[in-house]
Amino acid sequence: MLVSWLESELREQPEALDRLLQRQGAKAREIAGVFAGDDVRYILIASRGSSSNAARYAQYLLGRAHRVPVMFATPSLYTIYEQPPRLDGAVVLGISQSGASPDVAAVLAESRRQGRPTVAITNAPDSRLADEADAVLLLEAGEERAVAATKTYLNSLGAIAMLFAASDGPVAEEELARMPRLLEEQIALSLETAPSLDEYRDAIGATVVARGVNYGTAFEIALKIRELSGLVVEAYSPADLMHGPIAAIRAGWPVIVVAPSGPARPSVEDLVLPLRGRGARIIAVSDVAAVLRRAQTKLPLVARIPEWLSPLTACIPGQLTALRLAQQRGLDLDQPAGLAKVTMTR
Amino acid sequence: MLVSWLESELREQPEALDRLLQRQGAKAREIAGVFAGDDVRYILIASRGSSSNAARYAQYLLGRAHRVPVMFATPSLYTIYEQPPRLDGAVVLGISQSGASPDVAAVLAESRRQGRPTVAITNAPDSRLADEADAVLLLEAGEERAVAATKTYLNSLGAIAMLFAASDGPVAEEELARMPRLLEEQIALSLETAPSLDEYRDAIGATVVARGVNYGTAFEIALKIRELSGLVVEAYSPADLMHGPIAAIRAGWPVIVVAPSGPARPSVEDLVLPLRGRGARIIAVSDVAAVLRRAQTKLPLVARIPEWLSPLTACIPGQLTALRLAQQRGLDLDQPAGLAKVTMTR
Repeated sequence: MLVSWLESELREQPEALDRLLQRQGAKAREIAGVFAGDDVRYILIASRGSSSNAARYAQYLLGRAHRVPVMFATPSLYTIYEQPPRLDGAVVLGISQSGASPDVAAVLAESRRQGRPTVAITNAPDSRLADEADAVLLLEAGEERAVAATKTYLNSLGAIAMLFAASDGPVAEEELARMPRLLEEQIALSLETAPSLDEYRDAIGATVVARGVNYGTAFEIALKIRELSGLVVEAYSPADLMHGPIAAIRAGWPVIVVAPSGPARPSVEDLVLPLRGRGARIIAVSDVAAVLRRAQTKLPLVARIPEWLSPLTACIPGQLTALRLAQQRGLDLDQPAGLAKVTMTR
Repeated sequence: MLVSWLESELREQPEALDRLLQRQGAKAREIAGVFAGDDVRYILIASRGSSSNAARYAQYLLGRAHRVPVMFATPSLYTIYEQPPRLDGAVVLGISQSGASPDVAAVLAESRRQGRPTVAITNAPDSRLADEADAVLLLEAGEERAVAATKTYLNSLGAIAMLFAASDGPVAEEELARMPRLLEEQIALSLETAPSLDEYRDAIGATVVARGVNYGTAFEIALKIRELSGLVVEAYSPADLMHGPIAAIRAGWPVIVVAPSGPARPSVEDLVLPLRGRGARIIAVSDVAAVLRRAQTKLPLVARIPEWLSPLTACIPGQLTALRLAQQRGLDLDQPAGLAKVTMTR
């Protein structure tokens, strides 16, 4: 049987993460120093697609490491309106696996023009993004052939976790060092416990909910299912969903609740009751038995992973669900309809 | 025939905007001075729901007025994780019609604790949010009884436009002063040209696309339709949609393209071809004949409105479409299923 690139890249993730940790440790410590600079008031991130989901992880981790706000660039102010902001006080981080998107590079170019430090996280050392950056943290993911990102996304999270650990100290570094093995366990666990998704054969969409460090996980699971299966999948924080958008959640609508152990869990769990009241079908991604018990479909997580690292394992059942929903629909896993690996937007 | 609160509040918008402009001019000029402070490096906004859509307008307008980046707070760092960032260099703006949401107030409280200037835009002078702010710009919208925000949203845009005009000068102030009358014209035009929405009777969802100053308009139209009709409606910038999520746009899926005259228009218009290639039904919100001509459903805008003010009129056809889709489905306009006027999230 021919295995798709997507499946083989998905299974390659523990090895790719291990390679990143082995090769980029010194570089990560150097770059962490840039973020800790005396005149740094905030961190500005430019990204698109899956990298924007990794950027949400950076928003929490780098915000906590350096106690500064982390924001996302509005590229149109740089490109369409040509009215870029003054960036004094900023460190600017570009995240892009291909390093090719002109809008992301434009934000770094402007930052450099203003004499502010620039950092790139990319899989492509010869890209325009890498050129525009003072320092480059390479993803070391190897070539990714499937259009839908798996190992480059995982290694983007890994790169951000390295920057956090370099600031936070040896305990965090040890916790991170254990992740390639735990990721392997997670893939094995998710394959073993893979639920039948037959009841979702006719689903037209789904909503993914998470908060805090896993807010980006919700967006990545939504994007992965969407890209591979063509379902209309969206992501929300519980608070944002409650402020109006919950109106569209009706009987039978699948809601994927990402609720690993940790401070953000109660806020996500509180949503289960109103969702069930609306007749939603709950799919839980969690290491907590009580959370899984209340769900129609259970996607268990490996236990005893510190919350700050849980996005690395929590995305795995999402990737596998996306893959299986696409297979169920007989779709091409490596080349979803109408998508390109590199998207050039300005 | 009994008219719903929603309809009467929708029609009241020109009058409500006029009241805001008449009453809050001096206050807006005072507050614009706060944003222009010497030590201001960035603006941090806390908001939820419709107010977050107004915040996206502020991101562009205040960013352009003061040439500083404008970012959105991540309330969970303040509430759930109790690790708020250092805010030196920040002006903090809270936007909430009710002023009641604890998470929005928590961001202002922390900012004040750190000695940073705080501003509130709210309809409720006695709210917790107003209490936490050094300066309050009142929305002057009068009581809003329908759960779905119309005039409080419009006046939130108006308040932000006042802050922009106060910094930008008399030309902008004159342009803004004409908006109550143009808003009246827009409501009349949208009622006159209201297309039959019969072909969308069976729609289950839609996607709204816009960029630049109207990026928030896309989110507000999506939220309005979603709240009132229960359809699954989502918002994207063209660039973000192209980076993967377009995979879910299939034959027959309605896409609302918000493309008023101005620098952002070509970027939105470029999307029409790939969308049509996928068989999407295009609904255009525009003052440009060429854009309307290429759409199945035309929602014309009043012409000759400067782009920076176009979000005030561009939301009107969205509000009316939301209202009529809800009527078509026989739903309660004032009290959508399961929603509350004030949502308390932390």
